[in-house]
Amino acid sequence: MANKNGVEWSIRLGDGSSKVLEPETKHGVMRLWDCLKGLVYRFVGRVWTFFKKAWDLGVDDPKKFFHCLKVGVALLLVSLFYYFRPLYDGVGGSAIWAVMTVVVVFEYTVGGTLYKCLNRICATFLAGFLALGIHWIASHSGHQFEPYIMGISLFLLASATTFSRFIPVVKARYDYGCTIFILTYSLVSISGYRVEHLLHIAHERVSTIIIGTCLCIITSMVVFPVWAGLELHLLIPRNMDKIAKSLDCCVADFFGHDDEESKKSLHGYKCALNAKFSEENMANFARWEPAHGRFNFRHPWKNYLKIGTSSRRCAYCIETLTSCLDSKNQVPESIKKHLESACMNLTTSSSNVIRELATVVSTMTKSRKINMAIDDMKNAVLELQNDLKTLPDLLIQRHDDKEEKQVASSEVTMMPLIEVMPLVSFASLLIETASRIEENMVKTVEELAESAKFKQPEEDVKPKRNQTTNKIVLADEENMAVLQRV
Amino acid sequence: MANKNGVEWSIRLGDGSSKVLEPETKHGVMRLWDCLKGLVYRFVGRVWTFFKKAWDLGVDDPKKFFHCLKVGVALLLVSLFYYFRPLYDGVGGSAIWAVMTVVVVFEYTVGGTLYKCLNRICATFLAGFLALGIHWIASHSGHQFEPYIMGISLFLLASATTFSRFIPVVKARYDYGCTIFILTYSLVSISGYRVEHLLHIAHERVSTIIIGTCLCIITSMVVFPVWAGLELHLLIPRNMDKIAKSLDCCVADFFGHDDEESKKSLHGYKCALNAKFSEENMANFARWEPAHGRFNFRHPWKNYLKIGTSSRRCAYCIETLTSCLDSKNQVPESIKKHLESACMNLTTSSSNVIRELATVVSTMTKSRKINMAIDDMKNAVLELQNDLKTLPDLLIQRHDDKEEKQVASSEVTMMPLIEVMPLVSFASLLIETASRIEENMVKTVEELAESAKFKQPEEDVKPKRNQTTNKIVLADEENMAVLQRV
Repeated sequence: MANKNGVEWSIRLGDGSSKVLEPETKHGVMRLWDCLKGLVYRFVGRVWTFFKKAWDLGVDDPKKFFHCLKVGVALLLVSLFYYFRPLYDGVGGSAIWAVMTVVVVFEYTVGGTLYKCLNRICATFLAGFLALGIHWIASHSGHQFEPYIMGISLFLLASATTFSRFIPVVKARYDYGCTIFILTYSLVSISGYRVEHLLHIAHERVSTIIIGTCLCIITSMVVFPVWAGLELHLLIPRNMDKIAKSLDCCVADFFGHDDEESKKSLHGYKCALNAKFSEENMANFARWEPAHGRFNFRHPWKNYLKIGTSSRRCAYCIETLTSCLDSKNQVPESIKKHLESACMNLTTSSSNVIRELATVVSTMTKSRKINMAIDDMKNAVLELQNDLKTLPDLLIQRHDDKEEKQVASSEVTMMPLIEVMPLVSFASLLIETASRIEENMVKTVEELAESAKFKQPEEDVKPKRNQTTNKIVLADEENMAVLQRV
Repeated sequence: MANKNGVEWSIRLGDGSSKVLEPETKHGVMRLWDCLKGLVYRFVGRVWTFFKKAWDLGVDDPKKFFHCLKVGVALLLVSLFYYFRPLYDGVGGSAIWAVMTVVVVFEYTVGGTLYKCLNRICATFLAGFLALGIHWIASHSGHQFEPYIMGISLFLLASATTFSRFIPVVKARYDYGCTIFILTYSLVSISGYRVEHLLHIAHERVSTIIIGTCLCIITSMVVFPVWAGLELHLLIPRNMDKIAKSLDCCVADFFGHDDEESKKSLHGYKCALNAKFSEENMANFARWEPAHGRFNFRHPWKNYLKIGTSSRRCAYCIETLTSCLDSKNQVPESIKKHLESACMNLTTSSSNVIRELATVVSTMTKSRKINMAIDDMKNAVLELQNDLKTLPDLLIQRHDDKEEKQVASSEVTMMPLIEVMPLVSFASLLIETASRIEENMVKTVEELAESAKFKQPEEDVKPKRNQTTNKIVLADEENMAVLQRV
């Protein structure tokens, strides 16, 4: 029952026959139906994509799933105060503050939770006592002055505290505390004017807040803890590795050794470029964390930020380097060949140094190999510079083969410098990258190694198994070979 | 009464004579005194420095002072609900929620305040209704199941909402709403189990929250408003100007035309490098703001972010450029002289383009001059490339003046390319900067101009005053001169 324009709609009449509906009506209904179907499909599609993305996000980092479960568990635990009578009778009606504390204070990392908990407790105490004190003064200065004294003190304290949040140090460490300070001060000072049992209320509120914070701290520290310090400790070397990989891929691309995989990793340096904010955030939280794993309480987290900054400086260079790739085809192949091995050497040795530094950071052990790797890089720089020195000979297109033998130097023409410019600036950017690695990255990692007292590398390999020994001998032979080549 | 070691301490005895204290005692006391004095001085010094810095911060940007006063005023206004009986009787005991709303919701920018207010209101409504609905279901499924249904729903919703905060879009737009959703849901669902007058409480709470948010919105929009959109609109061209200034200073420094002032502005580009987070923040807040000044409700704030990104790409280049300054003295003066004028030209025209683009953004008016400025820059690139092409002739140290006239080209030695490398890579970085300006900055500013429907430039100057006319004629003459030179 279908014609070319779509499905026909018919209705069965009372006498058993059926009547085909008019095409005009059909089209109207069909259009509405299609439209609705399209809307529903699109909606379902978008919701599906959203959930797919969310699921991938969680699968990518299961710690995020655990965090959500932890929040649920903490809330359930604190709501037990309400659900079961005995507990309820103990803490009274302000158990609501315990719930609120859990919701507001529970953060992804232990450091974040501790930062908020400690800020909340200290600010509540401070503001509470201050409010009680000023309330006492106000109540002794006559009933008619009381609202004015309270009002003016509220205005002044709120303004001053709000202003202090603009100061970078306060913002980084006590921002949440400032909010809670204003909140508590205004609540207590206002309630103080209305409610008689002020001390009782204050006691109740403080005790419930302490219950909430303790619950949060315990949950976040005991159940699958996510330490901000550890996250930072993992992020920094991960970004360094990405930079090394990018450098490798960029140079491989320039000399035509690129494949699909390297094209993907080429832009890994961007992670380092954009990591500043999250690094600073993690370092801020990490300072609140107690000793955990291999980190002491006063682990020098600031040094990690310095390494991050120096990595970014390398990443800037690589970013500029990638833009040379656009003009790589301008350079004549013969000239490219001349510098290729030196460039590749320098790249390999530079990325080796970065990787070695990343290993130093992630294993928290000084490296025996790092000095050799740096020397290797320096030698590669010299090698490239030497090759650059001999480049002009290549550039001169000798006219010896020509028949006419004239004396004038006018005959000696040169390949246009402009053609080799991309290569020259590529090479000089590589040298600059190497110098940034040496001057910034190596230095900042050394500073961290000093201030965090990294372990000394194990003394020269006391061979336990044959297999290991073989490997080490091989590695040393390679090192010797490198030295001899240099 | 002082000896060389310090002030002598003496005590007056009962008979009127005085006894000088023993030096040993003196020294002990003196040391303690000095120590104390030092501590107090240091403490006062640090406090003084802190306040000095804070004061400078405020003087530097008086809007911050105003913001603090606004917070104080808003808190005072809301506390009037408590201080004066008539109002108190109207809104009841949960006026505390109005105070809390003001403290938590009041942000520096109008957009920030609106974001928090709208999130708070919507999340409160949504969570409130959901909690009431589930509470109704639970209460109809038997008394023994009620806590389990409420507990499980709380656990599931809290976990899911917490997870959604990891999704970037949700994080950027509804982060605060998620917190409030969990908070309200847990409060209402828990109170629901205990308190009979649930609807009454819900109504009271919603009305006080609305009072608080309205107060915040009005205060932040009427009294010295700080619009996130306007701040972003000012920040972007300011950073572009800084980049232009940095570029000028960097090149001036390379060719030895630097002075004290230019050394200061050399690192201005760093502001652009570090502005990513605050730009994104402002754009996020700006999308909540109503039409204000020259901006409509749906002003394309995203395009500002694109301009920010393209500015940063230029800044990366300039960052690499500054590191060429270390090796500027390697380059022989004669060679430097050869490229100086072309480099300076390119720099001037590049920074002109950047400044012109900045003016386009800040005045929201398309520019008549921009195309000419871009052509100017392109021509300067060609000029520099030409000069680079003739560079090799300079590099060949001609031996014509020597006595021996031999034919071989072996005689034609070259100045080592390595010496001019800093200059060559400097020039190629300049060219790269120019291409980034043209490909990224110009394009993103044009996109903004299109989507925000920037005004057309005024038709050719109908001279009103003689002075103006003169100036314009002069400017046109200059333009002609540029064109002719090209």
